[in-house]
Amino acid sequence: MGPHPAVAAIRLAVRRVLHDVLTDLTERPAVRGGAGRGALLPAPGGGTPPLVLAACSGGADSMALASALAFEAPKLGIRAGGVTIDHGLQPGSDLRAAEVATRMAALGLDPVEAVTVHVGRGGGPEAAARDARYAALDDAAGRLGAAAVLLGHTRDDQAETVLLGLARGSGIRSLSGMPEVSAGPGGQGAPGRTHRYRRPFLQVDRQTARKACMVQSLPVWDDPHNIDPAYTRSRLRHEGLPALEKALGKGVVEALARTARLSRDDADALDAWAAEAEAGVRDDDGRLECAKLYALPPAVRRRVLRRAVVAAGSPAGSLFARHIEEVDRLITGWRGQGAINLPGRVEARRQGGRLVIRQG
Amino acid sequence: MGPHPAVAAIRLAVRRVLHDVLTDLTERPAVRGGAGRGALLPAPGGGTPPLVLAACSGGADSMALASALAFEAPKLGIRAGGVTIDHGLQPGSDLRAAEVATRMAALGLDPVEAVTVHVGRGGGPEAAARDARYAALDDAAGRLGAAAVLLGHTRDDQAETVLLGLARGSGIRSLSGMPEVSAGPGGQGAPGRTHRYRRPFLQVDRQTARKACMVQSLPVWDDPHNIDPAYTRSRLRHEGLPALEKALGKGVVEALARTARLSRDDADALDAWAAEAEAGVRDDDGRLECAKLYALPPAVRRRVLRRAVVAAGSPAGSLFARHIEEVDRLITGWRGQGAINLPGRVEARRQGGRLVIRQG
Repeated sequence: MGPHPAVAAIRLAVRRVLHDVLTDLTERPAVRGGAGRGALLPAPGGGTPPLVLAACSGGADSMALASALAFEAPKLGIRAGGVTIDHGLQPGSDLRAAEVATRMAALGLDPVEAVTVHVGRGGGPEAAARDARYAALDDAAGRLGAAAVLLGHTRDDQAETVLLGLARGSGIRSLSGMPEVSAGPGGQGAPGRTHRYRRPFLQVDRQTARKACMVQSLPVWDDPHNIDPAYTRSRLRHEGLPALEKALGKGVVEALARTARLSRDDADALDAWAAEAEAGVRDDDGRLECAKLYALPPAVRRRVLRRAVVAAGSPAGSLFARHIEEVDRLITGWRGQGAINLPGRVEARRQGGRLVIRQG
Repeated sequence: MGPHPAVAAIRLAVRRVLHDVLTDLTERPAVRGGAGRGALLPAPGGGTPPLVLAACSGGADSMALASALAFEAPKLGIRAGGVTIDHGLQPGSDLRAAEVATRMAALGLDPVEAVTVHVGRGGGPEAAARDARYAALDDAAGRLGAAAVLLGHTRDDQAETVLLGLARGSGIRSLSGMPEVSAGPGGQGAPGRTHRYRRPFLQVDRQTARKACMVQSLPVWDDPHNIDPAYTRSRLRHEGLPALEKALGKGVVEALARTARLSRDDADALDAWAAEAEAGVRDDDGRLECAKLYALPPAVRRRVLRRAVVAAGSPAGSLFARHIEEVDRLITGWRGQGAINLPGRVEARRQGGRLVIRQG
């Protein structure tokens, strides 16, 4: 008799990702280990086997992840380790982190680390905790020379992320949720880090992860934040999404997750188009020509404008769709309007058929 | 003292659209009137002034629309008329339609018509009523030689439409809601009909329309369907969207409406790219080359595949994202798999580096 279907599902999801990690290690020329290690990661098959870490909070999703990693990694000649982060936000969180580490070790993960971080205040409590967590995971992955860090986000988390993006109303990039593979904050372009984080469970639902823990008798810990309605995501999870499912049917979570995948590909394609188009709409002095901008499809033109405004020094995070729409009206609704003020003391004005965008 | 802000808002929205209608009449070479009239619509300023109709259910949104049209049209040399549809779905609906027509006439609209339709059963009760309604509006616009038909959909309706599209999970086209200007069902490409329907209130909220009726002492009629939870849209309006607003904040409706506008432009741009890319990926015999398809961005490739499958006879409405994903795996995940069956007895197979898509 095979394993319970929920256990089979989580193992299959992890196995697929581990295959991708191995393919990636073989195809990429040289993957650097962390600074503390100072050595190249050996190719699979020769020398030390590659290490893959599970990031584990002790909740059902990431305990399921850790258990599947512990089961699948050895079969593929991969070492499986684990990291848990103590955010230090509740009394006793250090004891709990130690307990999660013990549970991971009991699953057979090695090495296992419990890392304490200091959570700042930037961008609200959720963003601050996330920033601190990724910095610590990045550091651990570097120190331990890990080829990848697996994250336990499920399809339900993805659906919530899409709805949070929808609430910003800033276009399809914000609907594209979490990627299956990413570099993590600040890791874009760093050698060996562009594929560091992987999310095997983006197509696995939360219920399956819970069930897999139950049938494997894994103790799990429910984060009190997850049911604290002070957090937007928590309100969405416990009130918003259930109401939406009641109105639209049970397929909503899957539809949102699919929307994320499709939107990500669409946003990537349009970004590539805009990058290419940008060169073609500049005059010999590198200034943007309004007539050429006008000829672009609106979706591409707005992306070209956004790129130009960011390049002039406007912080991407403070630049909203309405800002770009206003700049766009210098092209499509020109009636002699004055300079437009944008975040980061950048201003955009139209001058002699050219768009001048610069920091004041 | 000027009008109440709500009245000013609905009038401004209608005035802008009437300007667009006039611009359109001037710029388009010859706009044919309906068959019953058999004549060209005269240019503004000469002969009979153009006619614009309000489609009015007697509810607050469309009564506000009718009142604003009655007020603004004469100032621009436009005749304002109205049509109300009796769907015949409730006892006494004929009397109510007659009453709505009387109210429109009292606002000064002329001509005014109450049209009875027969609602079929295709595609569920909402879709069937909508199909019958548009057919009747198309017919009335043709008979009366109307240059445009205004529809009272508000920003709230748009937000609901985006959520309904989101629940389908079939990509950004289904997130793009209702267009500001459209040909109506079946009118694409027909002379004089590509700009027939216009929605002046897509950026006006429902509350403003209600308020405008109240301060103008216009009696309005609440459609019992609007509060009947048997209808998906009604459940969304009365339960889903309020819960989402509670979780995410009051800006959700505006964010959804903005998402619709941005998604529509993005989808248009990607469709244009796919149409252009399609020619480049065919060999001399017009067959799709897998290697060239592989080189396209996924978002463009999937659209090229969708076009090819629809061209082979698959009904667009039955073709889902998962079908196209399966065809895509013939390109990106080729492992000798067999023919893929698609709606409309179309099959796709890979043969000698080419994709063969045809009806069986």
